[in-house]
Amino acid sequence: MQQQYPSQLLEKAVEEFAKLPGIGRKTALRLVLYLLRQETADVEQFADAVKEMKHGIKHCKVCHNISDNDVCPICSSQQRDNSTICVVENVRDVMAIENTAQFNGLYHVLGGIISPMDGIGPSDLEINSLVSRVAAGGVKEVILALSPTMEGDTTNFYIFRKLADYDVKLSVIARGISVGDELEYADEVTLGRSILNRTPFKC
Amino acid sequence: MQQQYPSQLLEKAVEEFAKLPGIGRKTALRLVLYLLRQETADVEQFADAVKEMKHGIKHCKVCHNISDNDVCPICSSQQRDNSTICVVENVRDVMAIENTAQFNGLYHVLGGIISPMDGIGPSDLEINSLVSRVAAGGVKEVILALSPTMEGDTTNFYIFRKLADYDVKLSVIARGISVGDELEYADEVTLGRSILNRTPFKC
Repeated sequence: MQQQYPSQLLEKAVEEFAKLPGIGRKTALRLVLYLLRQETADVEQFADAVKEMKHGIKHCKVCHNISDNDVCPICSSQQRDNSTICVVENVRDVMAIENTAQFNGLYHVLGGIISPMDGIGPSDLEINSLVSRVAAGGVKEVILALSPTMEGDTTNFYIFRKLADYDVKLSVIARGISVGDELEYADEVTLGRSILNRTPFKC
Repeated sequence: MQQQYPSQLLEKAVEEFAKLPGIGRKTALRLVLYLLRQETADVEQFADAVKEMKHGIKHCKVCHNISDNDVCPICSSQQRDNSTICVVENVRDVMAIENTAQFNGLYHVLGGIISPMDGIGPSDLEINSLVSRVAAGGVKEVILALSPTMEGDTTNFYIFRKLADYDVKLSVIARGISVGDELEYADEVTLGRSILNRTPFKC
């Protein structure tokens, strides 16, 4: 049944919130009524932060990560190893890897993965600019850190072929049992790969 | 661990979203990155809808429901029975009761319930204006439709005493087994009340 809203302004705001992923009309109403109870200045700040974010955020010219400047802090840093490029699907993956504090190279954000089902082909992604970065020289290793799915594997293979003519080491992030996981509950493919790709024991 | 954001504008927008109830920083990031992928016009529309809602929405002078005008459509309607007032906690309760299409009277939105734990006393609620509406005459029945909690019962009793001197019928919404519920899983208090307040059988 169509919900009756006592105000058109309320309805419009609820509809806008309900467009966000994972937010239904009931949750949207709850969020809008919460904003309605806040101070006007706080609501202005909320709306302005969204607008300023949309207008102000740039994408790094080099790695296509989100940035406040033309070149992101990672690409412009003198402390990072610019001979290693880690290829990821999106901005959240960069943040996830940065949070591990285990990687000191640069990134390359593809902006998606090849997915014919969703109509995303290689030309929709930042693959040519990755090839240009490698062609420019100085890159020793490209690490492919895409999702372990059919689409991720397809994209890995496409990039592998594109970079085949260049003298650069290509590697894929390790797939295996998650730290803390029970062996018996791991799926067969993951467990199989973890045995095939076993690493020397260190203590 | 503190998440590292590649952009301060992004971080600011995420922080604003994370202030909303039930939205953590991970969800906030997902929503903000979604907005970042949308057209500028759509994002403007989102932010403007929030601002316009905050600036434009009024509260009905009579029942304190949300409204685009000084008096809400329900209070100004000629089709509604203005001798019956249903007292509710908030705007969402009005919408819930309207959706049942079972009530044709007017409403009175208290804006909360008496809750000493949260520092909400009778003077924080629209109780005096309810008494004024009854005192003005023409009201035959006041239906108390507050939550069946300790706070709801306290508020019911407070309103009952405030209206004791007026010639008005006071009623409380029926409490009993939900339609479709299994009897054996109902709690004792609800089941007990449903037996005490049994209604004549109709077929």
